Amino acid sequence: MLNKLNVQEKLKQFYIEDNHYGDLATSIFDVQQCGTLTIVSKAEGIFCGTIIINESFKLIEPSIHIDLLVEDGDTIQQGQTLAIVQGHVQTLLTMERITLNLIQRMSGIATMTNEIVSKVRHTGVQIVDTRKTTPGLGMFEKYAVQVGGGYNHRRTLNDGIMLKDNHIAYSESLSQAVLKAKTMMGPMDKIEVEIETLEALDEAIQVGVDIIMFDNRSPSWIQQYITRVPSNIKTEASGNININNVIDYANTGVNYISIGAIFYTQRALDISAKVVM
Amino acid sequence: MLNKLNVQEKLKQFYIEDNHYGDLATSIFDVQQCGTLTIVSKAEGIFCGTIIINESFKLIEPSIHIDLLVEDGDTIQQGQTLAIVQGHVQTLLTMERITLNLIQRMSGIATMTNEIVSKVRHTGVQIVDTRKTTPGLGMFEKYAVQVGGGYNHRRTLNDGIMLKDNHIAYSESLSQAVLKAKTMMGPMDKIEVEIETLEALDEAIQVGVDIIMFDNRSPSWIQQYITRVPSNIKTEASGNININNVIDYANTGVNYISIGAIFYTQRALDISAKVVM
Amino acid sequence: MLNKLNVQEKLKQFYIEDNHYGDLATSIFDVQQCGTLTIVSKAEGIFCGTIIINESFKLIEPSIHIDLLVEDGDTIQQGQTLAIVQGHVQTLLTMERITLNLIQRMSGIATMTNEIVSKVRHTGVQIVDTRKTTPGLGMFEKYAVQVGGGYNHRRTLNDGIMLKDNHIAYSESLSQAVLKAKTMMGPMDKIEVEIETLEALDEAIQVGVDIIMFDNRSPSWIQQYITRVPSNIKTEASGNININNVIDYANTGVNYISIGAIFYTQRALDISAKVVM
Amino acid sequence: MLNKLNVQEKLKQFYIEDNHYGDLATSIFDVQQCGTLTIVSKAEGIFCGTIIINESFKLIEPSIHIDLLVEDGDTIQQGQTLAIVQGHVQTLLTMERITLNLIQRMSGIATMTNEIVSKVRHTGVQIVDTRKTTPGLGMFEKYAVQVGGGYNHRRTLNDGIMLKDNHIAYSESLSQAVLKAKTMMGPMDKIEVEIETLEALDEAIQVGVDIIMFDNRSPSWIQQYITRVPSNIKTEASGNININNVIDYANTGVNYISIGAIFYTQRALDISAKVVM
Amino acid sequence: MLNKLNVQEKLKQFYIEDNHYGDLATSIFDVQQCGTLTIVSKAEGIFCGTIIINESFKLIEPSIHIDLLVEDGDTIQQGQTLAIVQGHVQTLLTMERITLNLIQRMSGIATMTNEIVSKVRHTGVQIVDTRKTTPGLGMFEKYAVQVGGGYNHRRTLNDGIMLKDNHIAYSESLSQAVLKAKTMMGPMDKIEVEIETLEALDEAIQVGVDIIMFDNRSPSWIQQYITRVPSNIKTEASGNININNVIDYANTGVNYISIGAIFYTQRALDISAKVVM
Amino acid sequence: MLNKLNVQEKLKQFYIEDNHYGDLATSIFDVQQCGTLTIVSKAEGIFCGTIIINESFKLIEPSIHIDLLVEDGDTIQQGQTLAIVQGHVQTLLTMERITLNLIQRMSGIATMTNEIVSKVRHTGVQIVDTRKTTPGLGMFEKYAVQVGGGYNHRRTLNDGIMLKDNHIAYSESLSQAVLKAKTMMGPMDKIEVEIETLEALDEAIQVGVDIIMFDNRSPSWIQQYITRVPSNIKTEASGNININNVIDYANTGVNYISIGAIFYTQRALDISAKVVM
Repeated sequence: MLNKLNVQEKLKQFYIEDNHYGDLATSIFDVQQCGTLTIVSKAEGIFCGTIIINESFKLIEPSIHIDLLVEDGDTIQQGQTLAIVQGHVQTLLTMERITLNLIQRMSGIATMTNEIVSKVRHTGVQIVDTRKTTPGLGMFEKYAVQVGGGYNHRRTLNDGIMLKDNHIAYSESLSQAVLKAKTMMGPMDKIEVEIETLEALDEAIQVGVDIIMFDNRSPSWIQQYITRVPSNIKTEASGNININNVIDYANTGVNYISIGAIFYTQRALDISAKVVM
Repeated sequence: MLNKLNVQEKLKQFYIEDNHYGDLATSIFDVQQCGTLTIVSKAEGIFCGTIIINESFKLIEPSIHIDLLVEDGDTIQQGQTLAIVQGHVQTLLTMERITLNLIQRMSGIATMTNEIVSKVRHTGVQIVDTRKTTPGLGMFEKYAVQVGGGYNHRRTLNDGIMLKDNHIAYSESLSQAVLKAKTMMGPMDKIEVEIETLEALDEAIQVGVDIIMFDNRSPSWIQQYITRVPSNIKTEASGNININNVIDYANTGVNYISIGAIFYTQRALDISAKVVM
Repeated sequence: MLNKLNVQEKLKQFYIEDNHYGDLATSIFDVQQCGTLTIVSKAEGIFCGTIIINESFKLIEPSIHIDLLVEDGDTIQQGQTLAIVQGHVQTLLTMERITLNLIQRMSGIATMTNEIVSKVRHTGVQIVDTRKTTPGLGMFEKYAVQVGGGYNHRRTLNDGIMLKDNHIAYSESLSQAVLKAKTMMGPMDKIEVEIETLEALDEAIQVGVDIIMFDNRSPSWIQQYITRVPSNIKTEASGNININNVIDYANTGVNYISIGAIFYTQRALDISAKVVM
Repeated sequence: MLNKLNVQEKLKQFYIEDNHYGDLATSIFDVQQCGTLTIVSKAEGIFCGTIIINESFKLIEPSIHIDLLVEDGDTIQQGQTLAIVQGHVQTLLTMERITLNLIQRMSGIATMTNEIVSKVRHTGVQIVDTRKTTPGLGMFEKYAVQVGGGYNHRRTLNDGIMLKDNHIAYSESLSQAVLKAKTMMGPMDKIEVEIETLEALDEAIQVGVDIIMFDNRSPSWIQQYITRVPSNIKTEASGNININNVIDYANTGVNYISIGAIFYTQRALDISAKVVM
Repeated sequence: MLNKLNVQEKLKQFYIEDNHYGDLATSIFDVQQCGTLTIVSKAEGIFCGTIIINESFKLIEPSIHIDLLVEDGDTIQQGQTLAIVQGHVQTLLTMERITLNLIQRMSGIATMTNEIVSKVRHTGVQIVDTRKTTPGLGMFEKYAVQVGGGYNHRRTLNDGIMLKDNHIAYSESLSQAVLKAKTMMGPMDKIEVEIETLEALDEAIQVGVDIIMFDNRSPSWIQQYITRVPSNIKTEASGNININNVIDYANTGVNYISIGAIFYTQRALDISAKVVM
Repeated sequence: MLNKLNVQEKLKQFYIEDNHYGDLATSIFDVQQCGTLTIVSKAEGIFCGTIIINESFKLIEPSIHIDLLVEDGDTIQQGQTLAIVQGHVQTLLTMERITLNLIQRMSGIATMTNEIVSKVRHTGVQIVDTRKTTPGLGMFEKYAVQVGGGYNHRRTLNDGIMLKDNHIAYSESLSQAVLKAKTMMGPMDKIEVEIETLEALDEAIQVGVDIIMFDNRSPSWIQQYITRVPSNIKTEASGNININNVIDYANTGVNYISIGAIFYTQRALDISAKVVM
């Protein structure tokens, strides 16, 4: 569930950045002229972004009429009408682009997540995201992962404790880093540690953490050593995992697979806005 | 040239969103502990983002030492060190992710733009972007297009007058829309109109505009009718143009080719930060 | 057309700056006490600011009743009632001052613009503004120029390319500056260059620009040399032009006359708010 | 004394509004190119705005070199150099306009205030401003009044209690309004009441206030009745007072004369920025 | 009277800080599920905060139904229902905590103020607050003092002139500081000076101020010397005054007693939110 | 570790709210006048707030000299000098109050936390805070708890999943609520559930959660039933626990004790700023 108030504030910021002075092109229309705009998918995928459509136009025309014909998570087809928006032409034309830019990206993420999740659903592994979000858009992107059937790893740097390779490199040892971190953990915090070697794996198991991340390890490497991990420690695979090799990682028995590419090789779902004549 | 002050304000916002409360994992280090971080490319492409590296770390440690080994627009190789940052470990580890997230996206856009520009450079056509930017990040993305050798179309809705299919659909006619728009144009404004039919093309020529955009027209269609356009009107091709067919559009003789995919099928360039031991 | 959302955010900022803690004087009234306020002109001029009246009071009392008796651009008379606002007395009295402060300034600019435009309307020249706006109020002031019958020159520093005397002074030559600038121009950008000498004029014509500005040149000087300018280059007169000499500049045949004084010698139109008993 | 931190935040806002995307014209210069800019007065008046010159350029180039040749309150001559700024050309050219726009307005207000103060200095009356400031710029304008030799009336709606004609119109009576207001006054609050009739004057005297404002009363009217006011109540004249009639009001013996025109008929002092070759 | 617009902006900021990403716990409920929440006091005291209850929930659900059963300033009992809120469960559960956190603090301040005021009401002294407010919450806390029957001393640093011990320590003398300050006072400004010795008291009387503050003086000390203060100067006692000794200070005849502990030893009134089944 | 950038932005906001227009009292000093201010404790306790002293004054005078004589967590004595600040008198006097207001509150929380922690340190229980923070100051207050030896429970609503009595009341059953919540949990999320009855306790154990909170249960009740909780589930006591009864709760064997009063019955530590003559 996105925070509606935060969505509204973000949309305000985006809109004012894009349209500080008032749009000349839209000024050719009479303030009172009304029209209808349909939002139509030009591709197949998983839709995400109902809150964007619901909130964006209302920011400048609170009484606008919006018929949403789709829900977050629905599979949509090429040519499918997603929403019908009826209001002042000036509203429709100045808010159209920002609305599309957001729902295209969110639907793109939901679609890509869903494709990956579909490949491994039978294994019970959870597909999770990373903190490689687009700056300023994290909340939209993490929500899209949920809609696509994935799960959110850390939302911000303040969510629990994640000791990555660089943290450990700056520390005396993995164990020292973990033990120091444990002195600061509150009841709701978990601790996860990245490992790349067998020695690190054994050290992590011995010092005790909540989650061990196999970073840039091959499926066979993971499969060979995952049996050392006791049942009270969860496991995660990470690093260059994509739709082609995700099943190999899922079959290793890890609990989570994180996929950074969900955010940084976004392919927006093509969605357009068309006037109804 | 990016506005440095605006870059700083954006970075502040991104950092505070990501690290409102102070990071626990980084708190394992002594405040005074120093270290060195290298920023290394894991792929080949065009680099973009020196201002990000220069400004991000300084926001929290003004006296940090940064050796930039690359300039915007440079071709970088896999394994190439782009920058060396020496400062407090806490600074390095909390600012690393946001810095990477931005330069990966900017370099990805510069790289993709450059690939497309390279295909058509000999024709003299200008590759231009669109307003399909990521909300909140427009200034970074438009700058990356420049770095990649492309040109910026409208920066915001307030840059000149662009009459798209939807504007015309809500108007009595293309001519009426153009004539109305002309009554509001200041000295620095240009007017561009989208056309999809021969009738619209002739109407646009007759009423007079600065630029005519052939929207979703095939190269052959454009080639057939572009000769009707007088020399004082510029032409632009748009719609589903990509690296594979861009040369066909360039050969039609249009002045500009706009490529929305530069922004919405981003493939971030893989760049990582590694501790120097 | 002003961007309503941006107007609302500006009004919020102004109101909170003026009334952070809650007004003691207004606290003498019962929260539920209602009243009527009329907004009355105390001078003759061109009105500008309907959006201000419409949005300001609603920010703190969304259901307030506003009868607007005037439109932007209307000629108003001394003593004319411009609007009747019915709502809670606390709303009326705390929002009155900011509302008046803005519409007085906007109407003052519209009136002054209109006076100048009236002097030269028969010549077909366009009266345009400058970037000498009041910081933070640019959008209100540029809109007022439109309402007064003028046109907007650059809205911000990012609107096209304007090479002023100082740009050229820092460059090798006018031609070098223009040629460099042209390498960065996108399809919607225009380039304008200021000239003060005959040599500069000829150089600008030769290198080619969209607009040549005659800066601080006398009408006779302009008249003598404007014939050298080819028809595809527009011309603008600028510098110490006022209502008394504007016709002389208009008669030179320039396309645009820019008048910085529109913004920096503002004479607000006197408008007051009176209680209806 | 202006609050430097608030000045910086305002300047940031103004600059980002004006230059969101990075200026193309300034991009023709090499980032490292340095130059010198002089700020020169083109008119005679009272200067105000050293803090603006000191802070604006530094926002984007902290190590810029500024020689201020003038202090707030100095009388400046036509042609006088006010400051010499040495730094990167890109800094000088993008920050020049906002700097000038502010110091021109502030110096204009200081100059106008000073002219009025000079007319009545021998009488001992204090010239005070009003709350008719430009929204968002109140702190700059009120400071300029101080620099010109005037005094600030209420800075915001939260400064003490001012019962104007409209407050009284909505109340049962002047006395009732004053008595109600007194129940809310803290130790640092004063109460002032506007009167337009003899009855109101007597009522205000009887109920007791800190200041009585003669609103839109002629000098002779005031002179006739001011003797009724006991010595522990201060008096103020207001309404259509200007440089021509201010002495008449001063001679009535009022303590304060407020002049709204200081803010709403601003005549900015002409100041320009010139490149030193 | 609190400024409703500022209250809304503050509440937005607080809510987004607390719930940037959308609450997982609340996401277990269907978006449409409705419920009823009662706000119930768990202690006896003076209530303050109706505006918080009225505005907070509406920020995310404008049509929510709120029955307020209490007014600011009412004495409330343990177990008393203060408000009934009916709306979506997601609204109720995400906004509950911030609402309670604010009204508990405001009611705590109102209650403590009221206890102190009750002790001295018969003496006619005014209990006033200080500037020792919680940063960012000043407006809420100062309002709570009013609701508890106290009065506000300076709201901000810009309210009049307060010369404290440190100001005087940095000055040549108390008299010099006061005389310099007087040259800057506008009509609505008052001047108050802290004194700790008999010499300072006499100096303050001689130079003339609006208020003299007896800082950290015993009741007997004040009683001994207050007779020296002429009737046109008000007096204030300050420093380590609490509910136990306030009556001793009141009996000295000072006009005001300021109590910093109102803000810095807050004891929030216990108020909870309970689901109605 | 507090986020320095966020601390700076908060301090800016607090300072501008308190000193929007520039302080008159401080204006009596020459801009160049320097002085020394010592920050001195007037009570015994645990200090917290070095970052505040380090950052606040520098915001308006970057080169100010600060000698910090204390570290966060130090026990300080009455009369102990905590810091010596040398800079411009105007800086010292306008920033003093906000600095003190924050460090007094933070030190008060650290002191109270430490007193409670000291009572139970030998038992190994962790004292944790709640989300009953002062709105807008959460990050300062949660840090103070750490400094006092306590641990942070949820920082924001987005930290894991906490099902309180109200969540369960709106659900079909505790089990249903937990099972639904589990479908949304990412790898770093924990789930905690409040229980008040034996039935609820057994249900929570059966459905499986990370932490069970005994809400408003007596020590004897907890002691009787805590043995039912398997070792992989942590336990927390909450509700009306204070310094007097905390040991009884610690002796029950719970892992965590949360104390809301840490935030809502704050007793600021008395700290003052004194001029060094």
